[in-house]
Amino acid sequence: MTEAMKQLRQLQRELFAYNYAMALMMHDQSTVAPSDGDEGRNAALETLSGEVYKRIAGDVLPKLLEEAAKGELSEQEAAEVRELKRANEEFSKIPADEYAEAQVHFSQSQSIWPKAKTNRDFSLFAPYLEKSIAIRRKWAAYFDAEKNPYAVWLDHYQPGLTIEDCDAFFAALRKAIVPLLHRIQTEGTAPRTDFLRTVWPVEKQKELSAYLMNLMGLTSDHCVLAETEHPYTMGLYNGDVRITTHYYPTEITSNIYSTIHEGGHALYERGSDDRLNFTVLSGGNCTSLHESQSRLFENYVGRSREFLGHIWPKMLELFPEQLAGVTCEEFYRAVNTVEPGLIRTEADEMTYALHIMVRYELEKKMINGEIAVNELPAEWNRMYKEYLGVDVPDDAHGILQDIHWSMGDFGYFPGYALGTAYAAQMVQRMKQQFDFADCCAKGDLKPICDYQREHLWQYGQEKQAGELIAMNCGEVDPMVFVEYLEKKYSEIYQL
Amino acid sequence: MTEAMKQLRQLQRELFAYNYAMALMMHDQSTVAPSDGDEGRNAALETLSGEVYKRIAGDVLPKLLEEAAKGELSEQEAAEVRELKRANEEFSKIPADEYAEAQVHFSQSQSIWPKAKTNRDFSLFAPYLEKSIAIRRKWAAYFDAEKNPYAVWLDHYQPGLTIEDCDAFFAALRKAIVPLLHRIQTEGTAPRTDFLRTVWPVEKQKELSAYLMNLMGLTSDHCVLAETEHPYTMGLYNGDVRITTHYYPTEITSNIYSTIHEGGHALYERGSDDRLNFTVLSGGNCTSLHESQSRLFENYVGRSREFLGHIWPKMLELFPEQLAGVTCEEFYRAVNTVEPGLIRTEADEMTYALHIMVRYELEKKMINGEIAVNELPAEWNRMYKEYLGVDVPDDAHGILQDIHWSMGDFGYFPGYALGTAYAAQMVQRMKQQFDFADCCAKGDLKPICDYQREHLWQYGQEKQAGELIAMNCGEVDPMVFVEYLEKKYSEIYQL
Repeated sequence: MTEAMKQLRQLQRELFAYNYAMALMMHDQSTVAPSDGDEGRNAALETLSGEVYKRIAGDVLPKLLEEAAKGELSEQEAAEVRELKRANEEFSKIPADEYAEAQVHFSQSQSIWPKAKTNRDFSLFAPYLEKSIAIRRKWAAYFDAEKNPYAVWLDHYQPGLTIEDCDAFFAALRKAIVPLLHRIQTEGTAPRTDFLRTVWPVEKQKELSAYLMNLMGLTSDHCVLAETEHPYTMGLYNGDVRITTHYYPTEITSNIYSTIHEGGHALYERGSDDRLNFTVLSGGNCTSLHESQSRLFENYVGRSREFLGHIWPKMLELFPEQLAGVTCEEFYRAVNTVEPGLIRTEADEMTYALHIMVRYELEKKMINGEIAVNELPAEWNRMYKEYLGVDVPDDAHGILQDIHWSMGDFGYFPGYALGTAYAAQMVQRMKQQFDFADCCAKGDLKPICDYQREHLWQYGQEKQAGELIAMNCGEVDPMVFVEYLEKKYSEIYQL
Repeated sequence: MTEAMKQLRQLQRELFAYNYAMALMMHDQSTVAPSDGDEGRNAALETLSGEVYKRIAGDVLPKLLEEAAKGELSEQEAAEVRELKRANEEFSKIPADEYAEAQVHFSQSQSIWPKAKTNRDFSLFAPYLEKSIAIRRKWAAYFDAEKNPYAVWLDHYQPGLTIEDCDAFFAALRKAIVPLLHRIQTEGTAPRTDFLRTVWPVEKQKELSAYLMNLMGLTSDHCVLAETEHPYTMGLYNGDVRITTHYYPTEITSNIYSTIHEGGHALYERGSDDRLNFTVLSGGNCTSLHESQSRLFENYVGRSREFLGHIWPKMLELFPEQLAGVTCEEFYRAVNTVEPGLIRTEADEMTYALHIMVRYELEKKMINGEIAVNELPAEWNRMYKEYLGVDVPDDAHGILQDIHWSMGDFGYFPGYALGTAYAAQMVQRMKQQFDFADCCAKGDLKPICDYQREHLWQYGQEKQAGELIAMNCGEVDPMVFVEYLEKKYSEIYQL
């Protein structure tokens, strides 16, 4: 390895340390920290994020990159240089004080958001959202003043993704889903769901989460589960991944599918090859690929008849009273009920993309300066009525439901819908290689994990998003997802 | 403020950030981290501790200190300069690579220790202890090659404290305690304790901990409780203090007194004045002063007849079956039973100092190279037989019971006994000012907290240990503690 490359490795090891510490601070904030400890955390974040900034935006890195590029580079080294260069080009455009101030702002914003949500009071959160939008608009102009600001952020989360791609993708989905949804609602035979609305003791739900994680191969030596307002995954490195869920005593499906969804993210983070550890290449790739893994496990595994058949004895053991007189087939149909609702994370596979479309349209307007913050709740509610036909009772069940905007993530949401569609294509490919349904039926997810590790997980960010998507999906085609929906739901709803 | 002082403030703010992050990483490790996440944590610690080292040992700090000393300094600024100078003088003597290696070593050692304890297998821990001793011996020589190595560490934990002080202190205590203990064992009427050995549901114990914390004014906005193998307190800054306890289903007193003990530490950390935040002066002072506060609340408040009278209705509410037919007076006597035992943290006030003496004598020998690591378990067991008359059944109940040596803390233990004796003198003074017993009886600890804040907590490390001890105790006199013991236990044991 060349001297320049050695120095780049050391710099990446330092970046790892800062990112590890800051990620842990955020995770601590969301899970166990005292509610008023923000001042100390923010003071610490200011210094630590400043050190990250210095290392990425400083003038040391470009020289090292230039020097490294002169030498012979392995595929991994070339990828490290590429990603560091991209980061350097972005960071260098943001003034240091603005960067540090933004880190503190987003931490504060994340601290306010759950309070606003609990109080169902958008006005508490609005000034923070307004500032977040202003920051992201300003940064978009720093990155590329010529380009549409929202397009800049789409490209940031998934290099190469454009507004045109997203518009076309969502138009195709909407065109297929809206009539299918209409047929289901008018001609379908709705499954029995009465038994879901009972009390599922949280202690038993915790046992179920542990059982599900175990089935996924997520054991306490590398992965632990915590409870937060909004479920998420935080991969510190491939040997330490944290996931969270939220237990609602009257909603068992929320916890089941949060655990499996975040478990899918965790598997992706864990599957990153050891050789990438402590470099900028470790962990998952772009948001849509990350979501392809969480949605693959949540829906194609977790909502399958076969997988539910496998976990049914455990369900009966944990919830004998709640499931008395219920068959596994009835449970399968119940968790696959199509019902336009208020909450994205609890949406069925059919309507999920509609929830994403609302967010996509709104964040595009926010970042492009086409809507004022105080107009957002009403516009959210109007779009939910238009897209999903539901009335939003309050902001906790409306615009305050997701954590993303509190973290300054605008341009992230499309990845959920894209990832879901990629997952359909990935599953199609796996089915050509091995008996996917049988793995689910046996609760043996190893062949699925092995396949995903070989084709996706191991690469982290070594290969770029576009290459990995092509490797795993071929040509992106939302119709594979649409056909899956049509087949599955025609059967469930007896169309 | 002078320019040099402004730069020193910035440097202290950076030190705060690193120490905050590393403390949180350690706390995470002890409470919720997956068991095999050491590699990532150690990689991060290496970088972060290296940055601390650079800032304290580097050549920037001495120049700034020199420059600052030329200007006019407030009392606080002068104290900052004094403490930074002391740190610089110590750190500069340790080579950078040795410092970083040691941080990683102590992290690994803390990861192994609970495993060794759970497996009751000293041999797992021995190589780590051996390395820890070697590091501390080497560093003692760096700090002062002329001085006895253990004396160096005593002075490190409490500037001014000497081996002669400790020897004389422990000799005085032993001379008074051993005959008193003998009288209690031969002439005393032992309290009824049968009811303590029952099952106290952990969920109810958790409610009790929350109740006790609330009485102490430790609310979830600034202080949270977690569960660990060994209870401890971690003050991130005065707005965020973490404490831990350990729940044993068959031992209610362990949790009660761990919660109150750590609560005392937490109050001290929280009481540090805001103006000291993000400087090296914030938090508690030396170990003995810290232990004076934990022991003050644990024993002089928590084991008093008056305080137990106040919490009795809550106890009956939480544990109606366990306490059926038990009077509060019987409970008071039971939690004050004198019984030489195996575990320090569960020792009564009378025999506690004997536990400390064993550790003091052993760590003195370790650091002075007078005993081999493989001889330690047998020597521990021999001394427990001699000092306390008990047979040690295994290393978990013997030499592996405490966390301190796993963290490389040698020279810390005497502070527990010293602090307990200081607390006796502090309580004597408080009793001259207000009705201490009445505060305990009413469960109104505010006057006690107000007094301690005014006389001790607010100062952090602004004033030095010796000055604070003199301010709070006058002349140190272990006989005040001995007289307290004689009076209390003569009555309980009807001597």
